[in-house]
Amino acid sequence: MVKEQPPTIKGFKASAVAAGLKKTGDRDLALFFSELPAAVSGVFTTNQVKAAPVLLTQEHIRSGKARAIIANSGNANACTGKEGLENARRTAALVAKELGIEPEEVLVASTGVIGAQMNMGAVEGAVPQLVGTLSPGGLQDAARAIMTTDSFPKISRFEGTVQGVPYHILGIAKGAGMIMPQMATMLCFVLSDIHVERSDLDRAVSDAVQTTFNRISVDGDTSTNDMVLVLANGLAGNGLPNPEEMELFTRGLTQVMGELATMIVRDGEGATKVVHVRIRGAATPHDAETAARVVANSSLVKTAFYGQDPNWGRIMGALGRAGIIMKEDAVDIWINEVKIVENGLGRGVRFEKEAAEQMKEATFELIIDLQQGGCEDRVITCDLTHEYVSINADYRT
Amino acid sequence: MVKEQPPTIKGFKASAVAAGLKKTGDRDLALFFSELPAAVSGVFTTNQVKAAPVLLTQEHIRSGKARAIIANSGNANACTGKEGLENARRTAALVAKELGIEPEEVLVASTGVIGAQMNMGAVEGAVPQLVGTLSPGGLQDAARAIMTTDSFPKISRFEGTVQGVPYHILGIAKGAGMIMPQMATMLCFVLSDIHVERSDLDRAVSDAVQTTFNRISVDGDTSTNDMVLVLANGLAGNGLPNPEEMELFTRGLTQVMGELATMIVRDGEGATKVVHVRIRGAATPHDAETAARVVANSSLVKTAFYGQDPNWGRIMGALGRAGIIMKEDAVDIWINEVKIVENGLGRGVRFEKEAAEQMKEATFELIIDLQQGGCEDRVITCDLTHEYVSINADYRT
Repeated sequence: MVKEQPPTIKGFKASAVAAGLKKTGDRDLALFFSELPAAVSGVFTTNQVKAAPVLLTQEHIRSGKARAIIANSGNANACTGKEGLENARRTAALVAKELGIEPEEVLVASTGVIGAQMNMGAVEGAVPQLVGTLSPGGLQDAARAIMTTDSFPKISRFEGTVQGVPYHILGIAKGAGMIMPQMATMLCFVLSDIHVERSDLDRAVSDAVQTTFNRISVDGDTSTNDMVLVLANGLAGNGLPNPEEMELFTRGLTQVMGELATMIVRDGEGATKVVHVRIRGAATPHDAETAARVVANSSLVKTAFYGQDPNWGRIMGALGRAGIIMKEDAVDIWINEVKIVENGLGRGVRFEKEAAEQMKEATFELIIDLQQGGCEDRVITCDLTHEYVSINADYRT
Repeated sequence: MVKEQPPTIKGFKASAVAAGLKKTGDRDLALFFSELPAAVSGVFTTNQVKAAPVLLTQEHIRSGKARAIIANSGNANACTGKEGLENARRTAALVAKELGIEPEEVLVASTGVIGAQMNMGAVEGAVPQLVGTLSPGGLQDAARAIMTTDSFPKISRFEGTVQGVPYHILGIAKGAGMIMPQMATMLCFVLSDIHVERSDLDRAVSDAVQTTFNRISVDGDTSTNDMVLVLANGLAGNGLPNPEEMELFTRGLTQVMGELATMIVRDGEGATKVVHVRIRGAATPHDAETAARVVANSSLVKTAFYGQDPNWGRIMGALGRAGIIMKEDAVDIWINEVKIVENGLGRGVRFEKEAAEQMKEATFELIIDLQQGGCEDRVITCDLTHEYVSINADYRT
C-alpha cells in the first residue's frame, strides 16, 4: 500500500507527460529508468494476438539486461501489423537516443484502444520532456500515467535483507476490467535494488505471478498487451542470496504482486465487492483451480454477489458444469463463517439471511468444500454491476 | 411463429392453472396430454447437477412411450435431494391417477428457483383442475404458464406430408437468460401427429437440437433443468416415412426448434440485439465452433454490441485466446455486408461508421473469415445490457 512519503527506490527514476495519446488530455506516457543495467525478467500474455510492444519487449529482454521501460496509455498498439511493430521499435530508439543507451535496453508497454496506429508525432514530441523530467520521486506520477479505466494508481512495496543488507521491491500496476481480464490489459512493473542472478529472478517471478496475477478473476487468459516486467539493478550492494534468502525474496515479490492483484480486483470496472472464492476438498489440483475459476467467472454468480443474494443454486449449477469430479450431495458452501449448504442441501432461510448480512461487506469469502479429496485453490473476483455495462458499452465513444 | 388461429394439434390437449408456485399469482402449472400413447424422445442437460424432474423423466422415457407432460415454473426442484425426487415422482403419480394412466407415462419438467422444496400441497390441489380443464385449444395458455423471465410465449409450427398424408409439428419453449444459458433453464416441448418409429424419432431430434438449441449463445452447457421432449402420437395416419420423408421431418423439426431458439435469444434477459456470429475459413469444424462460441460469449464483445460499437479489437482479442488455429494477419471481419477488418488490420473510420449504422438494427450478422481452411459454424447470441444485470441481481427478491 502507498505509504506517506513518495515512493522511491535506489537507482531508479521515473517521469510522466501528457503526450496527447489520451483524448482526455491526461498524462499518458511514462518512463522508468535504471541508472545501471538491471537484470530483467518478464511474463507476457498467452493470447495468440500479441500487441507490437509485447513482441518487441520479448525480443529485448532476451539479453537479460534492461535500463528503461516506456509505457503509454490511450493506445494498445495491437492489431496494427508491421507498421505497429515499426512504431514500437522507433519508440524504443527515440528513448534510447535521448537517454544515450542502446535501443535493446529499452522495453515498451502499451495499453488502450486496439487497432489504431500510434500517434508517433505525439510520442516523438514528448520523449525529450519525458527524459528531461526524470526524477527519483517521479514514480507516483508514472503510476498515474499508465491508468486507463483505473480509478486509483496501484503501488505496493516490500523490504527484505540478504546477509543483513537491506533491499527493496516496489511494484506498480494498472488494470481494472475484471470480468474478462483477458481483455482488460494488466501492466505491472516491479523495480528492485536487489543483486540477483537472472535465472533466480526468472524463477521467483514465475512463482509469484502464478499465485497472484494468475489467480485473479476468471480464466488466466490474458489480453493482447498483458505484461509483468521485473528489473533488479543490484544497487542494494548485497551478495548473491542463498536459497532461503531467495525464498524470502520470492515471498516479497508475491506479497507485492498479491497486493497489486487485489487492488486490480477492487478497482474492477464497476465493481462494488471483492470476493475470495476458495475451493477445498477437490480431487485434484486441476479440479480445485477449475472449480474456483468457473464459479468466479459465472455472470449469474457475480450478479448475485452484486445483489447481496446468497443464491447457492447458481453456485451448484456452475460446479455442475465445470467438468470436475463432484457429487451434488457432498458439497458444503459457506459465506465467510456462515454455512448455507450442507451435503448439497440448503440449510434454510435463517442461514441465508445471516449470509446476506455478510455479503454487505466490501470483501467476503465464498468457501466451497467438494469433499472429494485434499486439493485446494482460490481465485479473487468481483461482482458484475450496472456500472460495468456502462463502462464497456461506452469505452470507445 | 404464432398464426392467427389458436394453435392445436390432433390428439393433444393442454391446460394451465395458477397453483401458487409463482409468488406473482400467475399461472405456473401446465399439462400436455396425448389421447394415445405417443412415441417419445428427449434431450437433457449435460450438467452433473441434474434436477429431480430430469432424473425422473429420463427414467420414464426409457419405455419409448409417454402420454403426458406436467411442467411447472416458480420452482426448479433442483438441489433438493431425495425429497425432491420423491416429490417429482409423486407429481407424476397424482397426474396419472387423475388421468387414469400409468405414472411411467407421465413426464415432469420444472423451472424456477434452485434449492427449495416444491410446495406439494399446491401441486396436489391444482392437479384435478388441471386435468379437468384440458382442451385442444389450451396450448397457448400452457405456453404462458411455463414462462419465468420470458417476456412472451414461444410457439412454432411446421406442416409436412408422408406419402401425401399431412402431419403437423408444434413446438413450445421457454427460456430467456442468454448470457449463461447453462443457468437459464430452457424447456422445449414438441408435439406431432406423425407416425414414426422411436429410433428414427431419436435420430431426428438429436440432429435438430445440434444445429438449433446447441447453437444459441455461448457454450452448449446447460442448466440443471434443461429438457427437450418430443411426442409423436401417430394420429396423422401416415405410413412409416421413407428416408427422404424422414429428412423432411428432420428439417421440419429443425425449423421449429430453430425458430424457438431464435425467439429465446431475442427474449434474452435484457437483450436489445440478436447477433448471428458466423465463422468461415476455420481449419477444423471444432475450431469453427469454438471461435463462434468464444466470440459470442465474450462480455466485452456483447457490451460492444449493446453500445453499437464495431469494436473489432475485442473480437480479435477473443479469437486470440480461443485456442484455435489462426493468424492475426489473415483475419477478415464483416458486420453484415460491411468489411471492417482485412488481413487483421482495420479498414478505417469510414467503414466503422457504416458498420455502426448496421448495428442499430435489432438483428445483424458478425462474420469472421479466419482464412485457415474450409470449415464454418455459427452461434446466435445477444447483447449484454444494464437490464441483464438488473434482472439477475434481483431474481430471487
